[in-house]
Amino acid sequence: MGKAKLQPLKGFRDFLPPVTAVRRKAVDRLRSVFEKYGFSEVLTPALEYREVLIGKYGDEAEKLIYLFKDKGGRAVGLRYDLTVPLARVMATHRDLPIPFKRYQIQPVWRADKPQKGRYREIYQCDFDIVGSSSAISDAEIIAILNDALTALGLLAFKIRVNSREVLSSCLKLAKISKELESAVITSIDKLDKKPQSDVEKELASKGLSSTQIKSLFKAISASVPDKYLDEVMGIAAKLGITRKLEFDAKLARGLDYYTGPIFEVSLDEPKIGSVAGGGRYDHLLSDLGGPNLPATGASIGLDRVIDVISEVNLWEGKPRSSAKVLVTIFSQKLIDSSLSAANLLRRSGIDTELYPDSETKLEKQLKYADKKGIPWAVIIGPKEVLNGEAVLKNLEKKKQETIPVSALVTRIK
Amino acid sequence: MGKAKLQPLKGFRDFLPPVTAVRRKAVDRLRSVFEKYGFSEVLTPALEYREVLIGKYGDEAEKLIYLFKDKGGRAVGLRYDLTVPLARVMATHRDLPIPFKRYQIQPVWRADKPQKGRYREIYQCDFDIVGSSSAISDAEIIAILNDALTALGLLAFKIRVNSREVLSSCLKLAKISKELESAVITSIDKLDKKPQSDVEKELASKGLSSTQIKSLFKAISASVPDKYLDEVMGIAAKLGITRKLEFDAKLARGLDYYTGPIFEVSLDEPKIGSVAGGGRYDHLLSDLGGPNLPATGASIGLDRVIDVISEVNLWEGKPRSSAKVLVTIFSQKLIDSSLSAANLLRRSGIDTELYPDSETKLEKQLKYADKKGIPWAVIIGPKEVLNGEAVLKNLEKKKQETIPVSALVTRIK
Repeated sequence: MGKAKLQPLKGFRDFLPPVTAVRRKAVDRLRSVFEKYGFSEVLTPALEYREVLIGKYGDEAEKLIYLFKDKGGRAVGLRYDLTVPLARVMATHRDLPIPFKRYQIQPVWRADKPQKGRYREIYQCDFDIVGSSSAISDAEIIAILNDALTALGLLAFKIRVNSREVLSSCLKLAKISKELESAVITSIDKLDKKPQSDVEKELASKGLSSTQIKSLFKAISASVPDKYLDEVMGIAAKLGITRKLEFDAKLARGLDYYTGPIFEVSLDEPKIGSVAGGGRYDHLLSDLGGPNLPATGASIGLDRVIDVISEVNLWEGKPRSSAKVLVTIFSQKLIDSSLSAANLLRRSGIDTELYPDSETKLEKQLKYADKKGIPWAVIIGPKEVLNGEAVLKNLEKKKQETIPVSALVTRIK
Repeated sequence: MGKAKLQPLKGFRDFLPPVTAVRRKAVDRLRSVFEKYGFSEVLTPALEYREVLIGKYGDEAEKLIYLFKDKGGRAVGLRYDLTVPLARVMATHRDLPIPFKRYQIQPVWRADKPQKGRYREIYQCDFDIVGSSSAISDAEIIAILNDALTALGLLAFKIRVNSREVLSSCLKLAKISKELESAVITSIDKLDKKPQSDVEKELASKGLSSTQIKSLFKAISASVPDKYLDEVMGIAAKLGITRKLEFDAKLARGLDYYTGPIFEVSLDEPKIGSVAGGGRYDHLLSDLGGPNLPATGASIGLDRVIDVISEVNLWEGKPRSSAKVLVTIFSQKLIDSSLSAANLLRRSGIDTELYPDSETKLEKQLKYADKKGIPWAVIIGPKEVLNGEAVLKNLEKKKQETIPVSALVTRIK
């Protein structure tokens, strides 16, 4: 390969050891929350038929999706979200238990130009309940969002809820026509980031009269949860969530497939806005070619959440990406003692790296341990071999002691 | 999407709940073996530059790899193994600690026609040590293979080892020219599956004289491990492997990039042949455009291994793919008691599914639990609500009892 190609593709990332361990731990914690609620994991292929991916989205999807012809001439593409594969799975496997509660944690790919801080390969984490139109299901999704963020240690978050019903009746009160609904919702969605005056200007440019704009904002500020959302909020509270849900009639969430309650989780600290969200989408699966089943669910922005965890160094006891001990090799002649020490430590459940080279100077071996963040080193030289002992070095505290090999395990544990 | 497209692409699979749990458990067990040996995880992008993927392989790779142009006109493709990405990672990140011990468990994609039982999306599991030419490293790879298979519960396996040096000297003794070396090794590789007479015929058709064939087989059967392999085997034994390594001068392993010891793990029961293998490849990384570093490693055929585990029902305590308890809902009026029971069970660490619909008949709710393999059901009717009790039903044993709600946790645990 040419020198120019020694990099990953633009918009793609390698995940190397210290970061990968944080990702792994985050994913493990999310998994156990999903499983606590009885959700099971599903994995789907990276590639799907083009027709499945494009669905009813047409031209817009065209730009977003990696599409190509395979060697057999089939039009195929890389999945760009986990909702389309869910619809396809429900269509393919007609005997799944309904309600079907699944989670899926896999990468998706976006072919459009990556914006600053955005990537072309994104790890998504979705959980959904298919086949239930009950308020209990929406409440469970909210409860999982609450528990998931808590499990990650992200304690300064808030969960806002709203309902598409509430938004629709505000629009109706302001006498806004059906055709403008989607455009108006898109503008309202920006109230989170822009001053109201800017949004008002935008609405005017979309053709709303000043009377309409006034009565729209009046309706929004006078709104209360509709009956269904009220029920959802009540059930969520009884499921033991640790946050008081905040009703926010301005919460719109861009996607126009939502049909009922919508939820969004944002962080107060650091202030990076939405990290998770979702809602009820009762017609989407059939629109995508799947069966005619109601559904509700949410998605956690895994990459974003993990960036936060790494940036604010949230986990004090950082996940170790390397072993706890390095067993060094003093010389080719003394190799056996190091081998059996490594063996002993491993069989006792201690993650142990064995330095593989007997020719390397001890100093360099210890530097290697330091670079990898391995906290302990074991050195067995000629004197130690004779006495059945080992030098145990704590590389963080820069202390060392000579102890019997048999005492290594308890000392390190 | 059309009815015809409601399936995954040919050669691709969905992994649904019962199977996914087995996969997850297998991967978790492998991970902990790799980490016990101080290996760290790396993840790389699905897409790489075409030039990176094709490397020196040219036309052959062309057929094997999903290649296409992205929206920016870049020639790109899907990774088809985890070795090429390793070479690229070593080239991109020049400050990694050397020796670099990494494992990677990700899917790879093969664009050629899938054979029976083969797939186009394959989960690979590779572990390698880059930057060490020591026998200790090869021995560690063998020890990990031993521990990995053991951790999966696949106890009837054998590890055969050989060295490219041994094979080369056999070929030299039989006066076989350098040009024929690769073709002859390919034939020898088949001795595992075909009778010797067939392989002899094949060798004759490749241009070997009967004297050459005779002396080749004589040399093979008289072979002993070379010095380096002998050292590797000695160290592996001291690292506590549970299998006696079998030296097998006929072991060839198809790939011609190996430069030293080669290893292969096969199952005796069920007899499905090789499930893992690897070897030393000191020139491959630089051939692929990476740095000039020696390397050794192996790959476990994850899909194959998991198929075996599922087929022979190896794990008696099957991994649960669903919750341990279903909390049913007796009626809309009594919903609160079910909500708080579910909450209690979850906070006590029990994976608990809440049936989301108050309108569904109890019988249907219990059938749902049965279908999903959930062993326990909790029912709280009007009488139980009054007494602070719950009916706990064991769906496997078809027994039930009425106990205080507060006793549910200990009873189920």
